[in-house]
Amino acid sequence: MKAIVKKKRTRGMEFVEVPAPRVGLKDVLIKVKVASICGTDVHIFDWTRWAQHRFLPPRIIGHEFVGNVIKIGDEVTQVKIGDRVSAESHLTCGYCYQCNNGYSEVCKNFKLLGVDHDGTFAEFLVLPEHVLWKNDSHIPDEWATIQEPFGNAVDTVLAEDVSAKTVLILGAGPIGLFATGIAKACGASLIIISDPNDYRLAIGKKMGAHSIINPRKQDVVQTALEVTRDSGIDVVLEFSGNNQALNQGLKAITPGGRISILGIYERRVHIDLNKDVIFKKIRIYGITGRKIFSTWYKTSRFLSSGLVDPSPVITHQFSLKDYEKGMKLMKDGRCGKVILKM
Amino acid sequence: MKAIVKKKRTRGMEFVEVPAPRVGLKDVLIKVKVASICGTDVHIFDWTRWAQHRFLPPRIIGHEFVGNVIKIGDEVTQVKIGDRVSAESHLTCGYCYQCNNGYSEVCKNFKLLGVDHDGTFAEFLVLPEHVLWKNDSHIPDEWATIQEPFGNAVDTVLAEDVSAKTVLILGAGPIGLFATGIAKACGASLIIISDPNDYRLAIGKKMGAHSIINPRKQDVVQTALEVTRDSGIDVVLEFSGNNQALNQGLKAITPGGRISILGIYERRVHIDLNKDVIFKKIRIYGITGRKIFSTWYKTSRFLSSGLVDPSPVITHQFSLKDYEKGMKLMKDGRCGKVILKM
Amino acid sequence: MKAIVKKKRTRGMEFVEVPAPRVGLKDVLIKVKVASICGTDVHIFDWTRWAQHRFLPPRIIGHEFVGNVIKIGDEVTQVKIGDRVSAESHLTCGYCYQCNNGYSEVCKNFKLLGVDHDGTFAEFLVLPEHVLWKNDSHIPDEWATIQEPFGNAVDTVLAEDVSAKTVLILGAGPIGLFATGIAKACGASLIIISDPNDYRLAIGKKMGAHSIINPRKQDVVQTALEVTRDSGIDVVLEFSGNNQALNQGLKAITPGGRISILGIYERRVHIDLNKDVIFKKIRIYGITGRKIFSTWYKTSRFLSSGLVDPSPVITHQFSLKDYEKGMKLMKDGRCGKVILKM
Amino acid sequence: MKAIVKKKRTRGMEFVEVPAPRVGLKDVLIKVKVASICGTDVHIFDWTRWAQHRFLPPRIIGHEFVGNVIKIGDEVTQVKIGDRVSAESHLTCGYCYQCNNGYSEVCKNFKLLGVDHDGTFAEFLVLPEHVLWKNDSHIPDEWATIQEPFGNAVDTVLAEDVSAKTVLILGAGPIGLFATGIAKACGASLIIISDPNDYRLAIGKKMGAHSIINPRKQDVVQTALEVTRDSGIDVVLEFSGNNQALNQGLKAITPGGRISILGIYERRVHIDLNKDVIFKKIRIYGITGRKIFSTWYKTSRFLSSGLVDPSPVITHQFSLKDYEKGMKLMKDGRCGKVILKM
Repeated sequence: MKAIVKKKRTRGMEFVEVPAPRVGLKDVLIKVKVASICGTDVHIFDWTRWAQHRFLPPRIIGHEFVGNVIKIGDEVTQVKIGDRVSAESHLTCGYCYQCNNGYSEVCKNFKLLGVDHDGTFAEFLVLPEHVLWKNDSHIPDEWATIQEPFGNAVDTVLAEDVSAKTVLILGAGPIGLFATGIAKACGASLIIISDPNDYRLAIGKKMGAHSIINPRKQDVVQTALEVTRDSGIDVVLEFSGNNQALNQGLKAITPGGRISILGIYERRVHIDLNKDVIFKKIRIYGITGRKIFSTWYKTSRFLSSGLVDPSPVITHQFSLKDYEKGMKLMKDGRCGKVILKM
Repeated sequence: MKAIVKKKRTRGMEFVEVPAPRVGLKDVLIKVKVASICGTDVHIFDWTRWAQHRFLPPRIIGHEFVGNVIKIGDEVTQVKIGDRVSAESHLTCGYCYQCNNGYSEVCKNFKLLGVDHDGTFAEFLVLPEHVLWKNDSHIPDEWATIQEPFGNAVDTVLAEDVSAKTVLILGAGPIGLFATGIAKACGASLIIISDPNDYRLAIGKKMGAHSIINPRKQDVVQTALEVTRDSGIDVVLEFSGNNQALNQGLKAITPGGRISILGIYERRVHIDLNKDVIFKKIRIYGITGRKIFSTWYKTSRFLSSGLVDPSPVITHQFSLKDYEKGMKLMKDGRCGKVILKM
Repeated sequence: MKAIVKKKRTRGMEFVEVPAPRVGLKDVLIKVKVASICGTDVHIFDWTRWAQHRFLPPRIIGHEFVGNVIKIGDEVTQVKIGDRVSAESHLTCGYCYQCNNGYSEVCKNFKLLGVDHDGTFAEFLVLPEHVLWKNDSHIPDEWATIQEPFGNAVDTVLAEDVSAKTVLILGAGPIGLFATGIAKACGASLIIISDPNDYRLAIGKKMGAHSIINPRKQDVVQTALEVTRDSGIDVVLEFSGNNQALNQGLKAITPGGRISILGIYERRVHIDLNKDVIFKKIRIYGITGRKIFSTWYKTSRFLSSGLVDPSPVITHQFSLKDYEKGMKLMKDGRCGKVILKM
Repeated sequence: MKAIVKKKRTRGMEFVEVPAPRVGLKDVLIKVKVASICGTDVHIFDWTRWAQHRFLPPRIIGHEFVGNVIKIGDEVTQVKIGDRVSAESHLTCGYCYQCNNGYSEVCKNFKLLGVDHDGTFAEFLVLPEHVLWKNDSHIPDEWATIQEPFGNAVDTVLAEDVSAKTVLILGAGPIGLFATGIAKACGASLIIISDPNDYRLAIGKKMGAHSIINPRKQDVVQTALEVTRDSGIDVVLEFSGNNQALNQGLKAITPGGRISILGIYERRVHIDLNKDVIFKKIRIYGITGRKIFSTWYKTSRFLSSGLVDPSPVITHQFSLKDYEKGMKLMKDGRCGKVILKM
């Protein structure tokens, strides 16, 4: 079968022919229909410091997808041939302290699809049945593939209720843009999105932001205070991974408010903990992955019910072999989400 | 001034001339612009058993309103002449165990506006400043007056988050109808409303219900199971005060779900606690009043931001002197909310 | 092997020789060391209405135990021979809406140990590895066997925090008595326990209750109000399954308080929902089973750290063949927990 | 009357005669019996950068105390002559967004006792009645005075439930030591306290810590992992205000755990947000002040019920005029809490 393989410990990848994977007793073989590119995949391509530290070639990359089940192992009970599935990208152990206490998204032994287990940028994919999600028939393939990152946005937004609250979103990458739509759907009374990229801010407007801020042109904190009549923001959602944006967010929060942080930072962050967190009695939620599978239910319902229309975020699609075009757009910031069709 | 006064311990009320109220040091005099009728007012008119037990004539009735401040006492600091205000109907003590622990809505010593303190169905009204709410300028008078019962709906809906959840609303009176709009605004993925009154169900549809059920024609539990593919309902909101509806709600809930109950029952209720609550691990929230003033902020934001349009619920308006026409419609169930203009 | 088997659809059981169970690929064979009797087992013995409806003979009964692993199936990975284990009595499916949303204790497809699957009142027991709990070495066998019902008490007490709160416990059966010790360990500032059985009240005193009430001699609600200086009780824990006790509990709660209900009632209950729940804004938690496995961690820590000493509750021990003596004591209310040694 | 007054914008204070304060209509005059010294008072004495920025001389300092009401204003209704009272040190406005939403501890307009309003290091004190707390008769004066900082500890510990959880306390100053006793009383199954001061660690042991760590001699993170068998700590409580200790705490937390931070830092902090917060899905609670008055109820119950004995922490007492001796001990770290008797 054809697949995108990271073969060497240098920049780049290869679109090559590899043997189709074998199906174990509890495994399921899936014919991939659509996959989508995550920033992680670009890191692996670019062989960044994170990738050098974390990734062991050779490996088929990719962890977002939708596909059809075409074969099942003898002990598979919950999935049948023909099911249209996506998958949780964290292959959890099911037995550690975290898995046993409702925190399997931070399982101590998890394997990551497309990093520790051959990924989704391929014609076929094998996965254990316990990570599969059966897709709602109302969700088109182009949306089904983005449920994994959409789930990140769901957990970031809904760490606490946002109904009738003011929300500041920092970072208008695909997850920040999904978060905009989710906050809108969940009754946020005011949504501001901040990003230096005007192309992406325009998508934020389409996703429901009441106000957009380009921090290169406007003062984020001052604007946030103005639109809330000096109250400050109830809920800050940090997707940028930028220390300066983080600090703007902390300064914009009203005393007693909260911030959820999904963004990843290049280095250790500096914050004014006294003034911006302690004296304001802020709650900070570190967010990673998504609840397995409660977040998938929410995601599926947001997308199947029409509560969130992610179309404006899904800006480009390519055939699998043209994956590099998508990665190039992502690095240039001239896209939202890029999907790949088989 | 003109006012609706309950004078005698029998059925009926009187539209009469009474002296204007006096303004104490911490009080505010308000010229009422619009008031609205609550079921409680009808109980007092009809001199039902509850009224006989609770109400001490003579008293000006009514507790929902919007008006302008026209005079303030010497020690008033937060409100000024000209402010357009509504008010929390619970005049709380501020010192009891409940007030001191964040539960002032169930203050042990509260006085009820229009029951223990002269009410809003009058040209003028005096209130202590600490119960006043300054209205957002984007909310028209016809909406500002219904913020008090709207707040009941807010607390019933938001006892827990409803985002991406399935919701069954029992009872399509004004508060159940407001709740429909609120659940819609907060991202409920499926909203069913049940009521024997088709007129009100039609308003439920306008407020955002995906599905309406007339329990005289359809089986509520079976319908709820069908539309959730046998999962059951995540969130039940009980406004009917009907024991049968309550039991339908409890049977419709999915294990692990919750019900909020605002409806008032004619007598003690019977429930199958084992099967419908314990073995399903249900959470039940008794709801009364509204959080002072956090719920008022939410209410104001729902109405001022356009998240909820309560217009379909506000079906009739009369002049103050014609209040009996409104009460008659309410008893007949041929209306949503009835407002009175001065 | 020897086992207690419910063979016929009439009152009684038999202590008989049966074949040892077979071990499947994912199963574990356990040599039982100590088991303990639950009220459920007595219901099955007495062939009560519940048992007639729910239980299908023949079946080895019992679901509480501790034992040693003596054989494991080929696909078992987490348990090894020699491990000293107990087990969650709910054999959950892992795939239903409840299991996928953090509510596996109300799994829609669960099998109950000793009811749907051969139980623990036997020399040997086979269980799938995913329900096993490896015991902390500091917990003696006599305590390890009671972790399952102790977990019921943990979840009833800790539905919300009890620190610095006043607690009323209704029903001094073993689980109510465990709850007393748990509430004490978790910082309840006042614990009252009510039961008509003075023998059990005396154990309640040993478990840490500050005050004991015999409702045949004292007025529960009045006493609760007196000791809280008319504030009312913050937290009521209902284990009695008695409608009158339930109503006493609801009347004793302070406005804004909560009640957790684990007790099972003979028939539908009557409650004054308006006065005792809605107008007081009470939260009611139906409780069943225990969180898998977060409650087991808590239970293990309460017992291994010395925070709770359950010894006063474990009043009797018999050899397996003398199980009827234990059941007789339980029906007569002349015991706390009865354990059976192999 | 005699009082400790900060008169000049330099290091030092004065023990001088000043006029007794006047009592307004809503005010209460209190004869102080016992006061206690907070680190804030030492900052004001030393005229540190924080003090220079925040404090405006002349002002009587001090905010912790117990005393008797000896005179009340004409509009005072809740307090009477002879009441033994302490007070919330935050004089809140009651009208801001925070006060109206249950976050009055971060009121936007609060005045601080002993900083913005004449304080408690004096023979007499005037306060508005709404900040007063009537003391439980079972609490001795020496304990009643420390309820204000004890409340800081309560809110830090109980930001989430600690029952059956492992707890790491960073910083063994008086508040960290109170927190140790509170965590013990609330059922923490393992409590570790870390501080470079062995004198204070010894008090930590007396307050119930299972394990003490001197970070100059032991590796905090490694020890925490060892005693939790590599699980990591469920709950970290940061009182040290030391960036290194904060980072140790973050590294010691188990994925899915939480940290509460009350400590104040000399400068902006550096943290590894990716690895220590985001990828572990940590919740961070900034803590300041205490809930008004729900935390006071908890504090009172911890102290009056015998759940927490703060005696080991109260190491020294002086007469008011010898306050400098107490401050000296505090700077040298050779004390727990220092109280002042009138």
